[in-house]
Amino acid sequence: MSSLTPFFNPKGVAIIGASATPGKLGHGIVANLLRSGFRGAIYPVNPRADTILGLKAYPDIRQVPDPVDLAVIIIPAAAAPEALRACGERGVRAVAILSGGFAETGEAGARLQDALLDIARAYGIRLMGPNAVGVLNPYTGLDTTFIHEIPEPGFIAFLSQSGALGGALIDWAKGQHIGLSYFASLGNEADLTEADFIQALDHDPHTRVITLYTESIHNGPRFMAIARQVAPQTPIIALKAGGTEAGARAVASHTASLGGSDEAYSAAFKQTGVLRAHTIRELFETAIALAYRQPPLGPRVAILTNAGGPAAIAADALARNGLQLPQPDETTHQALHDALGDAPQLRNPIDLLGAASSPEYETAARILLNSDTYDAILAILVPNTANDPVAVADVLAQAAAGSDKPLYACFMGDLGVREAHRRLHEHQIPVFELPENAARAMANALRWRWVHASPPAPPPEPDLTPFQPIREEIQRLARAGATYLTEVDLYPLLEAVGFPLAPWTAAYTKRTAEAFASNYPGPFAVKILSPDILHKSDLGGVMLNVPAEAIGKAYWDLQARVRRRAPKAGLQGVLVQQMAEPGAEVIIGMRRDPTFGPLILFGGGGVYVEALRDVAFRIAPFADEEARRMIGETVAGRMILFGARSKRPGDVDALVALIQRVAALALAVPELVEFELNPVIVHEPGQGVTVVDARGVLQREMNDSSNPSQNRHLARPRADTDENTSRPGWRGKPTS
Amino acid sequence: MSSLTPFFNPKGVAIIGASATPGKLGHGIVANLLRSGFRGAIYPVNPRADTILGLKAYPDIRQVPDPVDLAVIIIPAAAAPEALRACGERGVRAVAILSGGFAETGEAGARLQDALLDIARAYGIRLMGPNAVGVLNPYTGLDTTFIHEIPEPGFIAFLSQSGALGGALIDWAKGQHIGLSYFASLGNEADLTEADFIQALDHDPHTRVITLYTESIHNGPRFMAIARQVAPQTPIIALKAGGTEAGARAVASHTASLGGSDEAYSAAFKQTGVLRAHTIRELFETAIALAYRQPPLGPRVAILTNAGGPAAIAADALARNGLQLPQPDETTHQALHDALGDAPQLRNPIDLLGAASSPEYETAARILLNSDTYDAILAILVPNTANDPVAVADVLAQAAAGSDKPLYACFMGDLGVREAHRRLHEHQIPVFELPENAARAMANALRWRWVHASPPAPPPEPDLTPFQPIREEIQRLARAGATYLTEVDLYPLLEAVGFPLAPWTAAYTKRTAEAFASNYPGPFAVKILSPDILHKSDLGGVMLNVPAEAIGKAYWDLQARVRRRAPKAGLQGVLVQQMAEPGAEVIIGMRRDPTFGPLILFGGGGVYVEALRDVAFRIAPFADEEARRMIGETVAGRMILFGARSKRPGDVDALVALIQRVAALALAVPELVEFELNPVIVHEPGQGVTVVDARGVLQREMNDSSNPSQNRHLARPRADTDENTSRPGWRGKPTS
Repeated sequence: MSSLTPFFNPKGVAIIGASATPGKLGHGIVANLLRSGFRGAIYPVNPRADTILGLKAYPDIRQVPDPVDLAVIIIPAAAAPEALRACGERGVRAVAILSGGFAETGEAGARLQDALLDIARAYGIRLMGPNAVGVLNPYTGLDTTFIHEIPEPGFIAFLSQSGALGGALIDWAKGQHIGLSYFASLGNEADLTEADFIQALDHDPHTRVITLYTESIHNGPRFMAIARQVAPQTPIIALKAGGTEAGARAVASHTASLGGSDEAYSAAFKQTGVLRAHTIRELFETAIALAYRQPPLGPRVAILTNAGGPAAIAADALARNGLQLPQPDETTHQALHDALGDAPQLRNPIDLLGAASSPEYETAARILLNSDTYDAILAILVPNTANDPVAVADVLAQAAAGSDKPLYACFMGDLGVREAHRRLHEHQIPVFELPENAARAMANALRWRWVHASPPAPPPEPDLTPFQPIREEIQRLARAGATYLTEVDLYPLLEAVGFPLAPWTAAYTKRTAEAFASNYPGPFAVKILSPDILHKSDLGGVMLNVPAEAIGKAYWDLQARVRRRAPKAGLQGVLVQQMAEPGAEVIIGMRRDPTFGPLILFGGGGVYVEALRDVAFRIAPFADEEARRMIGETVAGRMILFGARSKRPGDVDALVALIQRVAALALAVPELVEFELNPVIVHEPGQGVTVVDARGVLQREMNDSSNPSQNRHLARPRADTDENTSRPGWRGKPTS
Repeated sequence: MSSLTPFFNPKGVAIIGASATPGKLGHGIVANLLRSGFRGAIYPVNPRADTILGLKAYPDIRQVPDPVDLAVIIIPAAAAPEALRACGERGVRAVAILSGGFAETGEAGARLQDALLDIARAYGIRLMGPNAVGVLNPYTGLDTTFIHEIPEPGFIAFLSQSGALGGALIDWAKGQHIGLSYFASLGNEADLTEADFIQALDHDPHTRVITLYTESIHNGPRFMAIARQVAPQTPIIALKAGGTEAGARAVASHTASLGGSDEAYSAAFKQTGVLRAHTIRELFETAIALAYRQPPLGPRVAILTNAGGPAAIAADALARNGLQLPQPDETTHQALHDALGDAPQLRNPIDLLGAASSPEYETAARILLNSDTYDAILAILVPNTANDPVAVADVLAQAAAGSDKPLYACFMGDLGVREAHRRLHEHQIPVFELPENAARAMANALRWRWVHASPPAPPPEPDLTPFQPIREEIQRLARAGATYLTEVDLYPLLEAVGFPLAPWTAAYTKRTAEAFASNYPGPFAVKILSPDILHKSDLGGVMLNVPAEAIGKAYWDLQARVRRRAPKAGLQGVLVQQMAEPGAEVIIGMRRDPTFGPLILFGGGGVYVEALRDVAFRIAPFADEEARRMIGETVAGRMILFGARSKRPGDVDALVALIQRVAALALAVPELVEFELNPVIVHEPGQGVTVVDARGVLQREMNDSSNPSQNRHLARPRADTDENTSRPGWRGKPTS
């Protein structure tokens, strides 16, 4: 833990801005530390008070005696830098700044925050916040927050970018009997981030599961590197807000952070083994499932119930979450029958009927836990006048104690099962309020089992040397003011590093076109060459299946057609390319994410599929295995992997190689902010893949505040420039 | 209510099988009636007891004095028919049979259940159950269940096919302060079904919302007819279990009912304005949203909060559920600024910051409720040491009282907000535990607003007379043993009732093929004619784009190619059809659902789209408007409606007409159990649509127990029969 130790387990805490006035935050913190029984020293710092809540107050942190290794600052923002400097002079190397008024409020606040960071660096201080809520350790009574309740000690650490959310959830968790091992609210993360705490918590003896609420991660690659190491040992479950445009706006106005795209977060979580929760409830229920029990070894679940309706709902929910409900094998069925007789329904779900007794539950649970057919048990109980939920809770715990398979409970209702829920938590049996919630948490626990069983491989370090000449060329173009690269710009570069292109030529005269066509078996695609046209087919600028003998006519016809529809566009000739053999059409793309770097996209091709969003994402670099998984996540990709009806499978190896080539290009050429091969034709195994269109976007001067990802269509170059005919194909800066 | 009145408000209740032994169900019911303070007469019936719980017991229902208008039977199944007969003789016309051991246990039980129904019919008795849990009316103290708790009186009626689930949910609802107006557990529904109770509850003065848990609906068309009338006035929210295969199995073993497909249920709910909930929580939270407040008039929501994180989560969830978060208009912004000053964040979400006081909440809520920019307010509160949740609850209720716009609350946490939640329920402010839940319930409330504003039209009664000859022809085929109908079987029939087919002929000789081709502009599709081949393209049995001059060669080539791949298939020639002009490919299909009747499918065409399941469903008959909505529910359909990139819109009117033609065919020919036009080509507006393939499946003798919908591929006819060459195209019964 090293430099973070004082945030977990300080010897003494100074509260700069402690107050004697009840209702003030600086009062609540001192009160909380006293109320929670913190054993270390507590030093209120306030120049205008002698004592606060019975404790001696100091006018200045520099006058606080030993031991003091953590300071909490809760004074107006403008005074915070000076207080931080005083901490440095006093030798305190861990400071939590709870004051607001920094980067979250605008530019002046951001400058103040930078000043804090400079001071922290100068003194070697690790800084939490500003705009944080502090830390809370139920095992030691450390509570530097102004949260109302201190949670019960437990196994779940909770890191929250939002302090308020942390407070609400701690209150909620307490009501649900969910204990916490640690809570930290991270605020603006000027210095310490969630990644630092994740790393530290991996070694915390009480923490079995790490939960994280984040609105934006500050350093994507560092988060990924640390999460990848920790997640297979200590499950990490993340709830990310700002997934929708409205949510992102709420986040932007909240923490002044530029949210990376939701897809990038999902990809980063997936690649590092972080489980993504979609609701607050899922976050904590998944944590409970993983904190109390070993996760299941596989997807086969037996439902044990005393009521058919809830079991039907559970069966639906389990199946929707990818779990299975196999029937009892013969031995299991016989054992159940011998023990329970004819009355119960012995098919899965196993229904012991309404009046099921606790011995019946225990017997059935033991048999199912022993059965090789099942990886996990879900025990459902509906309270009624004939049963005793608390007794059932106890016997289920006894049955589960002797097994390494997990048993999950869903005791439905509220008043009638409250005590039973408490008991189940005590016995460390994960218990859920409703069957749908149990199913989702169980499915997530299984997902983590897979992360644990095959931890994500460290990403490869692709050799980017061959791409160096491309980068230089693209830099040259960027300097010349180019923004968009079309296929004729890109093909020569891509060809040089082995992208599989169909034979092509840029024909600025009819004769070149005809000469090229005479050298290859047709037919050909003929596409307009114009620096002013981004979407060629929209303007009729593409002819397909043109036979060799018609190339000359196509050369003129195509330009005439486009000229009619776009009279102002500068036309330079045509691009002639041999038509690829038919195959599955896919798209491979790249967008540079501000948080995580190159985000690679794979998906089905064509306009219809674009509308369906049948796509998968990964952050580059990644192993071939990840590229293959990405293919398998899409419907289009599964058809290439496995074939479908009359369609045969495609050349997956070649497709993986091409995806990796796009990833390498993205890593080698940071000036390229968007890149797309669309479509790529995937042929049968052994026959490779063919790129038949390409486009790229270069970094633009950031002189407008609009979202760069929306600029692709807006910034279509105007047609009134023709300044660079000297080197056709390379395009100058649009005049717009 | 008429014949159901005694189930809601009986003057006297007889309990046949009442018991003096605590722990027995027949004891619990009497105890419950006493405990809940039922004001009517209570008559225990038990030949072996003089008094039960201080009440005089009668040996036989026939000896029970007036008033008695409801009997509850809780004795072993075998004795139930006799008891029911006795009720009839006593003149009791409303009987709830709580005993199990009927259709849910197998064939003998089903016969016993039929006997009950016969007796009920003979005496004019309306029967609830068997295998039910009875009824519960918190307003009158009527409680014939053996459920532990009686709920608080409220506005939500709850109908449950599963009694156990009912019990659990009543316990849960009590804990959540959710009151009920009525509860009925319906059991096996031998006589009375959910539709009967829905109809009766529409007139119940306490019921504002009807919630329904069902595993299978017994009479689909009747349910739809009643739901369509009731739902626009009294919201109906349904939770249907058995949506997945595993869930359906759990249901089948539970209530012995044959579940209709999940898509059919979704379609039936949608067409009748029933809201479908996907979890138990959604069921009740939607009910709360609709029971307490008028639903919003539109989708524009203002979030009012004292914490950014929860607001960001809420914003995400609202946007995901189709709601909007517009920024305050100038007037509203000014009013907020004048009242609250500079500190709060006045963009939507409007963040009053952590220490927000109740006057601040009230002021902001009033301004937002008055703003024309918003249709609804979501007020979020996170408890902390500086605020008073109960006071905020009270002022929000005051603000909302003067407005016809709904205000929803999300007070997060548990212990810290419990009292505030109770108060909000008391004030009839819908309150939710977490922002995600609030968003979902609000979206559902808005969905109901639309149902209310434009109630589902009664379905049209299409004129089926023109289809009569088709039906006769298909009946003739069915009698001759035909199972599958291919395009050559169907085209003549479809043509006769105006299905838009491209010109075609069945050519049993090369000369016919050539003669046909010479009469039309090419090119042509040439398809194999074989009674033994269901999926022609899988065996290379289709040639596309064949020019007229190559038809003769294609005639032989195609047959030779198929013979190589399927040497045993009987080949009869080829079908030649003029290729349709290009356009969007879609599929229109029909499957006969056992519960609801003809289920019509519309979706995007092609093998890829099949994998993506871009489809929508409706139960026939339906208005043109519904067909249009069905098109709009799919991505493929929206591209036809609105165009996309380089694709122009399609001829929607012609497509709607074709969907309606398929619906009419399905209604007119009940022998047709599956039918599919795939693909249908949709041309540009005014250019119509073209059917280019068709197949049908006829009702088979049900001599196997497998799922008929899975037989399509299994039951492919063997190739060794050639008995019907006399009338090529019509196929005999497969020998398999």
